Amino acid sequence: MERPSLENLETPAALVDLERVEANLRRVDTYARQHGLRWRPHTKTHKVPELAALQLQAGASGVTVSTPHEAEVMATVASDVLLAYPPVGAARLERLMRLPAQVRLTVALDSREALAGLSIAACKAGRTVGVLVELDLGMRRVGVQSPAEALALARESSTAESVEYRGITFYPGHIRSSLNAQNSALGDLTTRLQEFSRALSDAGLHPGVVSGGSTPTLWRSHEVAGLTEIRPGINIFNDRNSAAVGACDWRECAYSVLATVVSTAVPGQAVIDAGSKALAKEEGVASVAGYGALLDRPEVTLRSLSEEHGLLDLSGTDWRPRVGDRVRVVPNHVCASVVLHERLWALRAGSVSHAWAVAGRGWGSP
Amino acid sequence: MERPSLENLETPAALVDLERVEANLRRVDTYARQHGLRWRPHTKTHKVPELAALQLQAGASGVTVSTPHEAEVMATVASDVLLAYPPVGAARLERLMRLPAQVRLTVALDSREALAGLSIAACKAGRTVGVLVELDLGMRRVGVQSPAEALALARESSTAESVEYRGITFYPGHIRSSLNAQNSALGDLTTRLQEFSRALSDAGLHPGVVSGGSTPTLWRSHEVAGLTEIRPGINIFNDRNSAAVGACDWRECAYSVLATVVSTAVPGQAVIDAGSKALAKEEGVASVAGYGALLDRPEVTLRSLSEEHGLLDLSGTDWRPRVGDRVRVVPNHVCASVVLHERLWALRAGSVSHAWAVAGRGWGSP
Repeated sequence: MERPSLENLETPAALVDLERVEANLRRVDTYARQHGLRWRPHTKTHKVPELAALQLQAGASGVTVSTPHEAEVMATVASDVLLAYPPVGAARLERLMRLPAQVRLTVALDSREALAGLSIAACKAGRTVGVLVELDLGMRRVGVQSPAEALALARESSTAESVEYRGITFYPGHIRSSLNAQNSALGDLTTRLQEFSRALSDAGLHPGVVSGGSTPTLWRSHEVAGLTEIRPGINIFNDRNSAAVGACDWRECAYSVLATVVSTAVPGQAVIDAGSKALAKEEGVASVAGYGALLDRPEVTLRSLSEEHGLLDLSGTDWRPRVGDRVRVVPNHVCASVVLHERLWALRAGSVSHAWAVAGRGWGSP
Repeated sequence: MERPSLENLETPAALVDLERVEANLRRVDTYARQHGLRWRPHTKTHKVPELAALQLQAGASGVTVSTPHEAEVMATVASDVLLAYPPVGAARLERLMRLPAQVRLTVALDSREALAGLSIAACKAGRTVGVLVELDLGMRRVGVQSPAEALALARESSTAESVEYRGITFYPGHIRSSLNAQNSALGDLTTRLQEFSRALSDAGLHPGVVSGGSTPTLWRSHEVAGLTEIRPGINIFNDRNSAAVGACDWRECAYSVLATVVSTAVPGQAVIDAGSKALAKEEGVASVAGYGALLDRPEVTLRSLSEEHGLLDLSGTDWRPRVGDRVRVVPNHVCASVVLHERLWALRAGSVSHAWAVAGRGWGSP
């Protein structure tokens, strides 16, 4: 593919500012080192092995994935992979077991059914798979509910064939803000986590790994006593929601979607060619209205999205774009936008440097 | 790829019930014939050329697309293509002009800028491109606002180099219901459409094509006086929103996402492996709560979606799924789900028959 310039790139196009990515990775690595935390980024945000390689070069200790296909793709650059997802289902297990033998694989699970299936599959495949017991620390999505349940599952993991109990994991997705208002939520989480850890340690099942964290809570991970590992995903790119909750500055947003103004026929608005099939129709957190905002004019938001149309709300600006003008949009939720693109265009010093295939999206060849 | 059975298909997987597709196509073709309407399905819903071929075999007079890549893919099976999208931007125009010469291409537009760019590109490419002037009949997304504006653009289209004025088009996306409550909206639309048509005809620019329609308004298209062509997209598959607004029966939903229950650890719910990256986080219309419902148990809805997790709300049922169980989910908005899948699995008599690549998604090779 010939290298296009930013001016003639077909729109909509997903752009990644490499300098910002590098700064974001340096910042998280510095933070993790400062606080003695391992850093295992969740690669579901970008699904690009070359970006996982950058994360590993920047100091990450391994990668996190959520699907077998992500695991396969990331295994080309990473030797230590955590599947932060219950390994349930024959096809999912088969693909996991076919990962290269040298990959150190760990999975998160919260049920005896998942553990039993994993143990049989690992045994058949002749490999050992690590287990983290998934805890529900308030998000109420997955995770065991009580220290007794965690203990039962940890005990079973420590004796089951071909698996190895390695610790505990949680995802604090219910804490959406980095701000002071959420202090008590983080305190509650820490208290709860310690109850689980203590019950396990008292039973001789000390969790060597205590893995948790999200981008919104990222910079406060050191307040969670006992944590050994953080798994931020969005942080490599950031997005409008991350900026809104204080997890990043707007100038740390490294991902945007380049779009063209295609219509100004309806007064008071402009229509761009980035809609829900380029940005994803993901609602904003808290006070974030609309589905995205312009990188260079964050006061201009995307009022509504159709599949191939985004409606710029011009009520907060005197700027009046013309048909053919180009803009860059920061979506609310970057992960949901990335997965709609087959490639991301890397920018270096504002110019298109190269393209990455979003190799880990979808299911790959089953 | 070997043909998997429904029982061992890797999840999440997009399934299409062929018998239901065929019935849906027969129904719309019968309706169109009955009312003397041409039927030009919008292929953005499925993005599969084989399904466009089925639509053409069933009686469609051509196809509608929204991107150059969809046009390229559909041109392998269709000789008459409408781009229902403003042809703005050099890359978009270049790709359109590279379509096979025998493809009869028409585009919708609402600005002089778009028309001027199209005329130059068509002239350079040595082809003639049809133009439909896009009208805003109440949706307030794209489209000229007044008969005077329509007239100016139609006149310019009729004289510009290498383009041919063919008529008018609109999308009634603001009418979300097929039900009686929306009678007045349809009446207003018809009145407005006639004002436009009359102004054009009086000026000697009679619109040979009057193209409009959506799936929600589909079965009432005959009430829109002067309409010559309908462009339903979703109708081939239908979805939860279509059923909710009365555009189809639940048993006419032909698309579902097969998913596996991966966790029941949190009481009162079950978690499946279809989240926003398989179903899309699209809100329901009107009274539709959640992000989807089970095909065989529509009372079980998806309360919330994370990227790879869907939370089944079990409050309306005594059914208690177990880890490893499989379910089929009908999403709120099928188009947004399809685009997340690289293939659709065709079912015939309940068994997997074959897979289609979703060849028209994304941008293709630029």
